[in-house]
Amino acid sequence: MEAPRSKTSAHVVDEVLQKIERTRQARRHKFYLRDERITLSHGSGGKATHNLIEGVFAPAFSNPMLDVMDDSAVFCVNDGPKLAFTTDTYVVSPLFFPGGDIGKLAVHGTINDLAMAGAKPLYLSAGFILEEGFPIEDLRKIVASMAQAAREAGIAIVTGDTKVVQRGKADGLFINTAGVGQVIATHDMGQNFLRPGDKVLLSGPIGDHGIAIMLAREALEIETDVESDTAPLHTLVEALLSSLGNAVHTLKDPTRGGVATALNEMAMSSEVSIGLEEHAIPVHAGVRGACEILGLDPLTIANEGKLLAIVAPEQAEAALQIMRAHPLGREAALIGTVQAEPPGMVFLHTDIGGMRVLDMLVGDPLPRIC
Amino acid sequence: MEAPRSKTSAHVVDEVLQKIERTRQARRHKFYLRDERITLSHGSGGKATHNLIEGVFAPAFSNPMLDVMDDSAVFCVNDGPKLAFTTDTYVVSPLFFPGGDIGKLAVHGTINDLAMAGAKPLYLSAGFILEEGFPIEDLRKIVASMAQAAREAGIAIVTGDTKVVQRGKADGLFINTAGVGQVIATHDMGQNFLRPGDKVLLSGPIGDHGIAIMLAREALEIETDVESDTAPLHTLVEALLSSLGNAVHTLKDPTRGGVATALNEMAMSSEVSIGLEEHAIPVHAGVRGACEILGLDPLTIANEGKLLAIVAPEQAEAALQIMRAHPLGREAALIGTVQAEPPGMVFLHTDIGGMRVLDMLVGDPLPRIC
Repeated sequence: MEAPRSKTSAHVVDEVLQKIERTRQARRHKFYLRDERITLSHGSGGKATHNLIEGVFAPAFSNPMLDVMDDSAVFCVNDGPKLAFTTDTYVVSPLFFPGGDIGKLAVHGTINDLAMAGAKPLYLSAGFILEEGFPIEDLRKIVASMAQAAREAGIAIVTGDTKVVQRGKADGLFINTAGVGQVIATHDMGQNFLRPGDKVLLSGPIGDHGIAIMLAREALEIETDVESDTAPLHTLVEALLSSLGNAVHTLKDPTRGGVATALNEMAMSSEVSIGLEEHAIPVHAGVRGACEILGLDPLTIANEGKLLAIVAPEQAEAALQIMRAHPLGREAALIGTVQAEPPGMVFLHTDIGGMRVLDMLVGDPLPRIC
Repeated sequence: MEAPRSKTSAHVVDEVLQKIERTRQARRHKFYLRDERITLSHGSGGKATHNLIEGVFAPAFSNPMLDVMDDSAVFCVNDGPKLAFTTDTYVVSPLFFPGGDIGKLAVHGTINDLAMAGAKPLYLSAGFILEEGFPIEDLRKIVASMAQAAREAGIAIVTGDTKVVQRGKADGLFINTAGVGQVIATHDMGQNFLRPGDKVLLSGPIGDHGIAIMLAREALEIETDVESDTAPLHTLVEALLSSLGNAVHTLKDPTRGGVATALNEMAMSSEVSIGLEEHAIPVHAGVRGACEILGLDPLTIANEGKLLAIVAPEQAEAALQIMRAHPLGREAALIGTVQAEPPGMVFLHTDIGGMRVLDMLVGDPLPRIC
């Protein structure tokens, strides 16, 4: 996957190279927080979220574990096993949507963050913020859904907390889940472990979660059968790690900000370039159709049951077979290659033979997606 | 501390005994959730919170670690050290108050939950829900306060998450902190470990936090210098455990619901009775005055830097001395005794020589105290 490819005209190459240079310039000052007030974009998981994290949280809380900016912190307590620890808050709207609800999402999301650290999820906490007047019947449904999701994934919710705020001071219900898992990966992984030549694998079609939420929320007259892909990915991760070991260089679930944001984060952390083949990226027809109508890019839409695996090239085919043999990876695909230059950039080789810079999500087309 | 005492008339004794029987009857159906919608009382930490937990969360999530209903779950991963894991969400209003802010509170609160499990706090997660339009300058202040609290306590905030909701869908900012600590207690502790004869120690004056919040919130014309007592109690716990070991039967920070609720929980879990001496319970003059004006009982008001220690009688004096030698326990006091009968009840021997049943907090005089 050399860039630029022969089909690309000299003019387009020039344009892309100029854009690269502009982007690089911009990234010298990357993640500068100019805002005086919080905007919805700060919750997008994309560029504005990074601005906020780099501008406020990272400098204040700085420590070696946080600074790697992976989704989980990894540590040992004394001579104990290596543990992963993560947290996520869920503010998805609506609370119930095709394919799931906020409870299921809150359990799967934290399981997945632990799994991406190469950990077997063990224990979850659950913190609830309830709005005065919230129907207890709905709370029961959500809690039952969490309990079922935990049971099915073989984990336990072991500690919790409940707060209530006055009517109008929250939006029904918010949930935080934190999780502890045992790291089963016997090698170091992370978004700074990409190497030129590595292959980019995606476990299945993208955009289902985000589009399902959007269609559940808006009174759009788009008829599709798109459902959230919310699912616990830890057994898929176990299958990959137990067979491929240190050939797995990093794992990432492309949630908020989508595949585009996740790969940009990796490219920056590892100081490599990533080239994607658009034709290879699986997207369900319903999602593709909705994205076309709404002017959205499936690559920036949130997923809740998909993972990106960056693997050594000699194990790419084996990884693909392992994924496809797993119920959650049947439509897995090899979608791209890691290159040395230019560092920190992601490119998309388009279906029509062009090439474009794929940036992380800017703005927030779909607030409160998770 | 025999009940009833000689000063108490036969009439009063009768009345108390009848009330005991009524309370026992009621407790056969204790914690029955009748409500159809969430009310502010469900967030009080008192009886309605228990109704909600026992009616919704406990049956759905049931597992041995959760079922003990301590503030932290305790477990080992493989042959590793014993760990404590806890979570708390903070929705305090206002965000800044005399003696602290929501950030400091969120760090101290989770440190304290770990400490009460006999654990040395190690790592915290931080999950933020931000309302669109929230001033970033205020966020910076809160984050700086969290960072300082963590630094002073010798712990690290290692993982986090940020979500944003639309204007009007939250109240400025909510924070969840979860925490992991290493259990340093070499014996089992918990609210079901109280034994008749045990002494009840309190590390200092009660009600400061709740009253400070209330006075910061309401435009009450009460002039006091009451400040929140928010403080990290882990070094006080370490001092007690390292000297007294298994003479410490349980530790509990009386936050939402106050001392009354905390002791009722213990009495029920351990199936013992607790008798308190009102005159021995330290209360700052400002808090006492505010409570009198507002018709509140300091025993049901939240504290954020105090602990209750239930210790074997022969070590009570030693425990008191250890507390008083610590900066956060200078005004510690022995406030009561554990008795066998009647199980599940807490009594207050009043200053004027009477005795009354002290129930857990009912209703919520001070919503969003933490």
